[in-house]
Amino acid sequence: MLSGMKEQKQWDVLVIGAGIIGLSTAYHIKQDNPDLSVLVIDRSNAAAQADTAKSMAAIRDTFTSETNRLLAKSSIEFYQHVQSELHVNLNLELIGYLWLLTEREFKTFESIEAGMRKQGIRLRTVERKDLAGLIPDLVLDPASEQSKIIGMVSIHKGVQGLDCGVVSPELIAKFYEDEFKKSGGELQFSTEAKSLRLEAKNKLDLPGEPYVWQEKVFAGAETNRGFIKADTVVIATGARAPVLLDPLGIDCLVKAKKRQIFQVKGNALDRLMNTKGFNDLNTIPFTILPRGGVYFRPVRGEKSFWVAAADDLGRAFAFDDEPMAEETYFTYNIYPILSEYFPCFANLRPANSWAGFYDINSVDSTPIIDRIDNCILTVGMSGSGIMKADAVGRMAAAILKGKAEAALYGERRISTTRLGLTNRSVGKEEFVI
Amino acid sequence: MLSGMKEQKQWDVLVIGAGIIGLSTAYHIKQDNPDLSVLVIDRSNAAAQADTAKSMAAIRDTFTSETNRLLAKSSIEFYQHVQSELHVNLNLELIGYLWLLTEREFKTFESIEAGMRKQGIRLRTVERKDLAGLIPDLVLDPASEQSKIIGMVSIHKGVQGLDCGVVSPELIAKFYEDEFKKSGGELQFSTEAKSLRLEAKNKLDLPGEPYVWQEKVFAGAETNRGFIKADTVVIATGARAPVLLDPLGIDCLVKAKKRQIFQVKGNALDRLMNTKGFNDLNTIPFTILPRGGVYFRPVRGEKSFWVAAADDLGRAFAFDDEPMAEETYFTYNIYPILSEYFPCFANLRPANSWAGFYDINSVDSTPIIDRIDNCILTVGMSGSGIMKADAVGRMAAAILKGKAEAALYGERRISTTRLGLTNRSVGKEEFVI
Repeated sequence: MLSGMKEQKQWDVLVIGAGIIGLSTAYHIKQDNPDLSVLVIDRSNAAAQADTAKSMAAIRDTFTSETNRLLAKSSIEFYQHVQSELHVNLNLELIGYLWLLTEREFKTFESIEAGMRKQGIRLRTVERKDLAGLIPDLVLDPASEQSKIIGMVSIHKGVQGLDCGVVSPELIAKFYEDEFKKSGGELQFSTEAKSLRLEAKNKLDLPGEPYVWQEKVFAGAETNRGFIKADTVVIATGARAPVLLDPLGIDCLVKAKKRQIFQVKGNALDRLMNTKGFNDLNTIPFTILPRGGVYFRPVRGEKSFWVAAADDLGRAFAFDDEPMAEETYFTYNIYPILSEYFPCFANLRPANSWAGFYDINSVDSTPIIDRIDNCILTVGMSGSGIMKADAVGRMAAAILKGKAEAALYGERRISTTRLGLTNRSVGKEEFVI
Repeated sequence: MLSGMKEQKQWDVLVIGAGIIGLSTAYHIKQDNPDLSVLVIDRSNAAAQADTAKSMAAIRDTFTSETNRLLAKSSIEFYQHVQSELHVNLNLELIGYLWLLTEREFKTFESIEAGMRKQGIRLRTVERKDLAGLIPDLVLDPASEQSKIIGMVSIHKGVQGLDCGVVSPELIAKFYEDEFKKSGGELQFSTEAKSLRLEAKNKLDLPGEPYVWQEKVFAGAETNRGFIKADTVVIATGARAPVLLDPLGIDCLVKAKKRQIFQVKGNALDRLMNTKGFNDLNTIPFTILPRGGVYFRPVRGEKSFWVAAADDLGRAFAFDDEPMAEETYFTYNIYPILSEYFPCFANLRPANSWAGFYDINSVDSTPIIDRIDNCILTVGMSGSGIMKADAVGRMAAAILKGKAEAALYGERRISTTRLGLTNRSVGKEEFVI
C-alpha cells in the first residue's frame, strides 16, 4: 500500500438494501454476533423507502406448504410479540383476509381445507346468504351489461383467514433499524451499490483477474460513494438483485414485476369501511375478488382503500429504477371488476397511486436464502416478503454462522439449506386461489 | 375486415428459431401431424447459423439423472440410426470423452460409478501409468513455476465415456430441415421475431387489451417482415427466449451465458491428434482437464483442436446479438492450464475463434419443455442441447398433441410434464466433475 493512502475500513458484514429484508437480516446478524461490524447501505435517503413501502402490507398464514407456513407464521407471531409485549406499535391489525370465491374456486379450497385446519390455520367459511347480510355493499351476482361483457361470475361463498391482516412494514423496518443501531450496527444512505467486486483469493496483480482457474472471493461493493470492503456481502436488494448478480454470472432466479396500488377515497365507501362481523375492528377484511385478481384493503388511518390487481400473463418482467403506476391500469383492469362487485366504488377515481416491484421467484414463489462463498442472498420474496421478513433474517444470520438449522420465533426450527438456489425443499403451495 | 385488405395466412404452427432444437421440433411435429401447416422462421439467412453452429458439438450419455440419460441416450441413438441406417452423414464419431481427474475428483466419480454402470453407461477407468503411456503429450504432474502459481494439481486417473463423442450439429439440423421440407414444412429466413402478440380470446376492440380479467391467447409473432399469425407458437430461440417472453411476464428460467471457442492448429499437435488406444479412429477423445474447466476436442477434418473453458462464477449472464470471443480469454484463462498439462500447445495462438450462448437453466441445467396456453417452450438446453435435441423435439410434438407421454427413439417413454416450468421431475445430476 502506498504510504499516505487511507486505510480502507473492512466491514465484517455489508448488507446491501435497507428494506424490511435487509434490516431484519442486519438486525438478526447483529443480535447473533454483537462483535461483528455490520453496515447496511441503501440508495434511498432513509430506510424502507422502496418496495417495502409500496406494498399492500398484508400478512397471512394461509399456506399449504410447510415452509411457507413456518416463514409466515413465525414472522407474524414475532411482529405480534413486538407490538404487544415490547409495546412497539407496528399498526398490526388482524382484520382477516376474505376470499370471495366462485363455486369452482370453492371446490379447490375444499380439497385443501382439512389439511390447513389440521396445521392450525384458523379458517371460517362464510355462506353466500351470510355474505349478503354482512356486506350490503357486495353484489354477489353481477348482471349488468358490462359484467356480461366481462364474463363475470357469481360469488358462491367466502373464506376468511382469521389470523391474517395488515401491518405497517415501515414500522417493522423502523423497529429493526432502531434495534440494529442500538446494538452498534451502522447505516449509510444515499449509497447505491453499482456492482459487486469479485477478486481472486490469491491475487497475482495481472490484468483481467480473477481468471477461470482462480478461487474467487467477494471483496465488497462499488458504490456511488466509493468502494466498500467487507468479509461478507448480503444481497437484500429485492427486484434489483439481478442488476448486481447477473454481471457475475449468478442466477438468483429472480425477475422484477411491477405492482401498482391505487388509493381510493370517498364517503360512498364509509359503510364498506365499517363492515361488521369479520373482526374486532369492525372493518372489512383484506378482500380478494373472484378471478381477474383484483383485491383491496381498508386503510383505516387514512380513511381510504388501497386497490390492486395480481398481474400474471401479459405483465412484463422488467426492472426500472423509478416505476410508475398507470392510470389506465386502474380504469381498464381494476375498475370494471371492482365497481361491479362493489358498486360503492362507482365513479370514484384514485386519489393517489404508486408502484413498486415484486422480486418474483417463478420456480416456487418462495424466498431464496443461500450463500455463494462469502455472499449471502436473501431475495425472491415473490410478494410475501413482509410477512416472512423476520424468518428470512433469522435464516440468513444462521447461514452466516454456518449453522445447519435456524431457530425461528416461537420455538420453530428450519434447515438452512431448504431455501437454497439448488436442491430446494419448499413443498407444493396449493393455496393459490 | 376492410375490403381489399389481404387475408392474413394463419399457420397451424409457427416455430421461432431454426437451430437444432427448432428444426427437430418442427420435424417431429410435421411427422406426427402431416396435415398441419408448419412454418419455421429464423433471423439468420439459413438454418443452424447461431448457437447450434458455435457449439463444441460433443455428445455424451454419462449422466446420473434418469431424465438426462433418457434425453441424451435416445437422441444419440437416433443420430446413429440416421447415420448408419438412413446413410445420412452426420460426422458422428464416437471418439469418447476423457475426464482427467484429480484424486479428489476421482473419489467423487467412484461414488457414482456403480450406479452409472448399472444403467448401462459404458465407462473405462484409465490408470495413471496407462495415461502416461497412451498420451505422451500429457504432463500428469505440472511442476513449472507457472503451474505452482496457478496451483495446478496432479492428474490421478482418467475416466473415459465410451459411448460419447462428437458430431456435426449443422448436419443434424440439415437432416431435420430436409425431411421437414420434404413433408411439406416451410421455412422463412432473415425473419426476426421481434415480439409475441398476446390477444384477448374475446376481443372487445378497446384500448390496452388484453386486460387482467380477459382470457388470453398467443396470436403469433411480430417480425421485421410483418405479423405472422399462428394457432400455436413454439419458442425455440435458445438464449434469446427471454427477449420474447419477459415482455409477456413469462419467466422461462433461462439466462444467456457466452461460450467462446478457440481453434488451435500446428504440427506440434499431430501426435496428440493421432493418439491411439482410446477409439477406432485413433484420436484423442474430447478431453476435460482438472479444475479450471478447460477442455478440448480434436477436429479431424480440419486438423485442428477446439479449446474452451467452462465459465462459472465471474462470467456474466448477458445476451448480445453478436457475441464475440475475447483473445485475452484464451491467453489468461485457457492457455496457462492447457500448456502446462499439454506442452504441445505451447506458443500456439488461436487461428480462429467464435462465441455463442448457452441458454442456461440454473435450476437444474436440464431443458424446459412446457406449454403455456397455445405457446410451447423448448428452451434451457444449458449446454447439452445438441445431444438432446431429438428427444426435445419429440416431447414438444407430444405436448402439442396433448399426450401424457412422449415416445422417444429406441422404445423409450417419458412423461411430457416432467420438464415443465413448475413441478419439474428431473432427478439430481451428480456427474458434474
